[in-house]
Amino acid sequence: MGVGNNASALVQGVYHYTQNVDFEDLQPNYQGILFPKLCGYKIQDIEFSVAFDVDSRKIGRDLGSAIFCPPNNYPRVFNEDIPTGAIVRPAPVLDGVPQCLTGMVSVSEDSNGVGSDDAELESFFNYCTAAVIDTNTSVLLNFLPSGSDQATRFFARVAAAARAAFVNCTPSPAVHDESILRLFEEAKTPLLGDDLESHFGSSLIHRTLLKALEQRGLEIVHSYQVNLGGNTDFLNLSHRSEAKKKSKMKAISTTASSERVNILPSGGFLPGLGDRKVGYFVIEGRGWLNMPVMLDVKLQVQDSSNAAGVIIDLIRIAQAGVDRGIAGDLPLSYYFKNPLSEKLSTEDALELVCEFDRGEDSQKLERVVHVAQANARH
Amino acid sequence: MGVGNNASALVQGVYHYTQNVDFEDLQPNYQGILFPKLCGYKIQDIEFSVAFDVDSRKIGRDLGSAIFCPPNNYPRVFNEDIPTGAIVRPAPVLDGVPQCLTGMVSVSEDSNGVGSDDAELESFFNYCTAAVIDTNTSVLLNFLPSGSDQATRFFARVAAAARAAFVNCTPSPAVHDESILRLFEEAKTPLLGDDLESHFGSSLIHRTLLKALEQRGLEIVHSYQVNLGGNTDFLNLSHRSEAKKKSKMKAISTTASSERVNILPSGGFLPGLGDRKVGYFVIEGRGWLNMPVMLDVKLQVQDSSNAAGVIIDLIRIAQAGVDRGIAGDLPLSYYFKNPLSEKLSTEDALELVCEFDRGEDSQKLERVVHVAQANARH
Amino acid sequence: MGVGNNASALVQGVYHYTQNVDFEDLQPNYQGILFPKLCGYKIQDIEFSVAFDVDSRKIGRDLGSAIFCPPNNYPRVFNEDIPTGAIVRPAPVLDGVPQCLTGMVSVSEDSNGVGSDDAELESFFNYCTAAVIDTNTSVLLNFLPSGSDQATRFFARVAAAARAAFVNCTPSPAVHDESILRLFEEAKTPLLGDDLESHFGSSLIHRTLLKALEQRGLEIVHSYQVNLGGNTDFLNLSHRSEAKKKSKMKAISTTASSERVNILPSGGFLPGLGDRKVGYFVIEGRGWLNMPVMLDVKLQVQDSSNAAGVIIDLIRIAQAGVDRGIAGDLPLSYYFKNPLSEKLSTEDALELVCEFDRGEDSQKLERVVHVAQANARH
Amino acid sequence: MGVGNNASALVQGVYHYTQNVDFEDLQPNYQGILFPKLCGYKIQDIEFSVAFDVDSRKIGRDLGSAIFCPPNNYPRVFNEDIPTGAIVRPAPVLDGVPQCLTGMVSVSEDSNGVGSDDAELESFFNYCTAAVIDTNTSVLLNFLPSGSDQATRFFARVAAAARAAFVNCTPSPAVHDESILRLFEEAKTPLLGDDLESHFGSSLIHRTLLKALEQRGLEIVHSYQVNLGGNTDFLNLSHRSEAKKKSKMKAISTTASSERVNILPSGGFLPGLGDRKVGYFVIEGRGWLNMPVMLDVKLQVQDSSNAAGVIIDLIRIAQAGVDRGIAGDLPLSYYFKNPLSEKLSTEDALELVCEFDRGEDSQKLERVVHVAQANARH
Repeated sequence: MGVGNNASALVQGVYHYTQNVDFEDLQPNYQGILFPKLCGYKIQDIEFSVAFDVDSRKIGRDLGSAIFCPPNNYPRVFNEDIPTGAIVRPAPVLDGVPQCLTGMVSVSEDSNGVGSDDAELESFFNYCTAAVIDTNTSVLLNFLPSGSDQATRFFARVAAAARAAFVNCTPSPAVHDESILRLFEEAKTPLLGDDLESHFGSSLIHRTLLKALEQRGLEIVHSYQVNLGGNTDFLNLSHRSEAKKKSKMKAISTTASSERVNILPSGGFLPGLGDRKVGYFVIEGRGWLNMPVMLDVKLQVQDSSNAAGVIIDLIRIAQAGVDRGIAGDLPLSYYFKNPLSEKLSTEDALELVCEFDRGEDSQKLERVVHVAQANARH
Repeated sequence: MGVGNNASALVQGVYHYTQNVDFEDLQPNYQGILFPKLCGYKIQDIEFSVAFDVDSRKIGRDLGSAIFCPPNNYPRVFNEDIPTGAIVRPAPVLDGVPQCLTGMVSVSEDSNGVGSDDAELESFFNYCTAAVIDTNTSVLLNFLPSGSDQATRFFARVAAAARAAFVNCTPSPAVHDESILRLFEEAKTPLLGDDLESHFGSSLIHRTLLKALEQRGLEIVHSYQVNLGGNTDFLNLSHRSEAKKKSKMKAISTTASSERVNILPSGGFLPGLGDRKVGYFVIEGRGWLNMPVMLDVKLQVQDSSNAAGVIIDLIRIAQAGVDRGIAGDLPLSYYFKNPLSEKLSTEDALELVCEFDRGEDSQKLERVVHVAQANARH
Repeated sequence: MGVGNNASALVQGVYHYTQNVDFEDLQPNYQGILFPKLCGYKIQDIEFSVAFDVDSRKIGRDLGSAIFCPPNNYPRVFNEDIPTGAIVRPAPVLDGVPQCLTGMVSVSEDSNGVGSDDAELESFFNYCTAAVIDTNTSVLLNFLPSGSDQATRFFARVAAAARAAFVNCTPSPAVHDESILRLFEEAKTPLLGDDLESHFGSSLIHRTLLKALEQRGLEIVHSYQVNLGGNTDFLNLSHRSEAKKKSKMKAISTTASSERVNILPSGGFLPGLGDRKVGYFVIEGRGWLNMPVMLDVKLQVQDSSNAAGVIIDLIRIAQAGVDRGIAGDLPLSYYFKNPLSEKLSTEDALELVCEFDRGEDSQKLERVVHVAQANARH
Repeated sequence: MGVGNNASALVQGVYHYTQNVDFEDLQPNYQGILFPKLCGYKIQDIEFSVAFDVDSRKIGRDLGSAIFCPPNNYPRVFNEDIPTGAIVRPAPVLDGVPQCLTGMVSVSEDSNGVGSDDAELESFFNYCTAAVIDTNTSVLLNFLPSGSDQATRFFARVAAAARAAFVNCTPSPAVHDESILRLFEEAKTPLLGDDLESHFGSSLIHRTLLKALEQRGLEIVHSYQVNLGGNTDFLNLSHRSEAKKKSKMKAISTTASSERVNILPSGGFLPGLGDRKVGYFVIEGRGWLNMPVMLDVKLQVQDSSNAAGVIIDLIRIAQAGVDRGIAGDLPLSYYFKNPLSEKLSTEDALELVCEFDRGEDSQKLERVVHVAQANARH
């Protein structure tokens, strides 16, 4: 759901690696691929089956063509459109298009006005669920814009009804919404979320450096993080930043009193950056004899590549969750800013993924699930 | 040994905390103090007993006055001299004063020319050993300039003869010199080294960020680290950088092929920086669909405060090593760039320190010691 | 008008230099003073006579005490209050207190509700005008928050009525408001504005670097400027940024097509910065054989010192304008982002100030005035 | 002379623009071209006629093929070699190959050992002069490595003897060597130098920012500039930096006392950067009430593109100098770090170039020439 830059990076990337890379010889970390094979699946095992969007310019086209429609601005790596066979279907506009995006998004008539009437929404729900089932889709990826709480709930219900796994890449609550979580437990289908922690993003760097400072005994006096970008996600964020900020603060999870750490998820929309993202961080500390320690960091990434490199693992993990019959929260905090379970250290979180990859998830994961479920009840 | 900026930061800091801080209420990380109490010792339990230097302007003065003599340029926090009771004694100039420091260092007649004659050196050795024993000194700190291999060996022998612990803060080999290591094993006295990893320094940041990149699956294309400073250590390093570079590469210990990571221990001497140090780091990586990831970092620290905040722990650990009768290498890699044992992860290394603090060093540490000794034999 | 951080920097600075600096020996550029003597006036010739604010915590106090009231957060350099003799009087809240500042500003009853009634406003106008006249005030400084268009017009009318010079440090239109300009021409009193270009600020650096790039023949591909701060000006700006952005774009005045240059006057409010301001700039260019040129800049200043160092000149120039009977716009674009006349090059603008200082303003300045007035008519 | 990265950028660029750009429509500043037409010449009017180098791998090949030989590492933009018709001839190794480059440069037998014997050197001189004359070469470009003082003098003599203009891109003295200058005056041939100021380089930025600070009245407390690169020029510079440093200090020409400004022409050789160059600058100033101003800058350029964009103008100016019969120093300080005449402001220096372009160089240039010649005599 949401045929934006993330979808573009994902579809172009899967096509690129399938065409150009011999996966037998693939070394870990080659061009950002952490696991050449994960839970038995390679990248070329992934097939795109169905897509949903509200923009009339995208609806009805093959996904591999729709990803190049404006306002998408992820770099076009392939001149030709990519034949995926997945057709983009209309999605309902439930949360409203943010005012700032008006003029950039061309909402289809099918999408608009949905929700004014319960019967109409129900009919849309049946349509989407049928599309998922008919295309044999086993994993649904939520790429909706930040703040799409209602649409997230709508599609989570679709996934549960179609018994497909649901990967919530947005800060909208899914695993943190008890009613949604229960739906997946009852459907015996895995639910993953909330809020994707991108490949190498601001939260990761900020958390890593704050922790390093604290582990050496330094006092944190003041720290901030400011993110800038030029895609619609940033434009949207500069207006709907509260959920994002909360999710980001959780991802930092430092012992430093939070009044000493400021996070601005979006310091502003800079159209010239396109799909690139820039993060600035400052950490001011105090050491021996009250002397200052200053750390200045600038991070530049291709925003949607940064997401796709993580999603490629989540698709395979979600599929394995389906294969293994996992019901409800699949608590791999390595990939999410705001997991239901506690935010583990990077080492421990990665170890958990490796165990899941080897199929040794029976004990430790179960325990984490248990704790997470207990958390969810409170 | 070596009454430079590190000694100045250490002496002024111990005086400052002893005067101004109530250690009963001290929180960890306050002004850079990781352990308010370590192995039973507080900061005010430290007494300065003896010092050695080659500079005629420092020799014969109280240590708390000598630390303010040129070319030292650590900030003067106290207007008055600090009464320590420790008198600076002459040390032998064994490795020669680097040409670049000529004119800045005023070598005493007592110090110069030593070594041309074995009998003279032996007599100097006896003098120094007597000074350590007569002052009841139990821990000797090696603050000599980079490249002082002979002087390091000389004072390590003095420490072993006087049965004092020896903390080698320099990149010159001490634990990595098998003959020295054996001396301490025979003297049943602890030896700690080599090459201090400062509080929050370039090696730590660089290692932390490279590891974070790798753990997320990104490919490292190119990375560099360049350090700038304005104290004599930097001037010296721009001429004697080989040992330092090797030690720094070990401290990075990344899986990235080393031809992709460049380290310049000293990119140049900038007198205007005084005792401040500036490190620039760049990491260029490659992620999903071959898209670039760029990380730009600038670190600014007070160089000698950065060292003193670590030395304050090492003094107490070394004293505990004496108390507990540890013989030879005391392998706490948390504090050294180039330990004899393997470089542990920050978490594991810190855990080892905490266990040592609690006195639970019987098993795990013994095992590390064992491995380290085995390494030393090869 | 507006007893905020700018007033604090100005009052403390005048006190500091008057106490500590011998102006006979003062070298240009010492601690940020461009002109030790300007138009015959030294810094200690400045006397504070009257002040206006809406905050009940400041009203009624001596200006030298009111500058330390919250939410002001410019550093307190002097422990004692500064005796200026100028009493802070109530000002009318005409533009409303921005919602974001509610809770931080404690509006006095005298100030609030003004404007609902013409008679009441007129009575307030008479009160303020009398205060200016009775205190023999010859220069009024407008330090109101960005977006205070009505209050700026109110106090400009007060100044004209009291025949005092008016220095408009804010982006609200004063010289750009033809009716205000005419008032000053008729009152034969100088008007200076609009929007202070601070001592060494984002606009200056950005303009300087863009111009340098263009002068060398490079193509500008993309450039941005993002400013961060922690004083109420920034909080206010993140909500009222339009006028500021326009004024800043004019201050850049590059030939680069404006769609290639993005300016964010406030990328966000970071309370931990206090009165410090951080600006980030990026310029991406293209050179020979289409190869990239990248420039990354970070500027850190004390926001209100940065303003006071310019205001100190403007006070003296405005007084000279009064002395010399200048009527209306005094077009010294060196000090303003958005002057009525064209934005001269730094060299030419500075030369004009030097000529004015020497009293040689008869010809060139007259011509600039003439052009400026012509502009104002269109 | 010197078929390194600069030659590669120049030859590939001329080929690129000649192939791909319609010069009738060319806008100034497109891809780094300041003057589409200069003194009547377009870029495609340039022909390569002869080249000299000491490396056996390059000698005997077409220049358009030799530019791709190691250790050159400017990006290869064209897959095929470029047919220029100019053959690389042997040059004498006069200053010795710096030790650091041993192993990277493969010195030809023809080149080595020259100079041990006067007769041999004279014969080489005749050979080179003949090559220049026979190929109708009218402009010789000196791209020798920093520190090649003797080789620079050798080829300057060659140029004067062949009555070709000589453009000295290196810091070795040419216009600053009175005997060389007189040779060109006598030969009635133009001499341009010394030390190319690249398109958008460290000296330009540093000078621009220091001047901006001073013009606003701020005090410069400390400033440094450190340059990093990965081509042989940098490797060479880290050993032969004195002449470069002097030239760079002149290019900065700030009123700030020079002990407050430090320049490191090469902070180290980073092979991973290839032909890219990174410059870091810091300016610490002091403003109103002694408050700090901090400026942090990072500049990234393609080193040799940065030079070629300037050389393309110098070739055409030198040719015009030949056309117009200019004898000796052609004082266009816009393009050089260390001109014989005073270093003009950017605006004035550029204006001089524009006048020369329009052929209006009779008066002002003559005056500068006069002053420069007077300087040269003292």
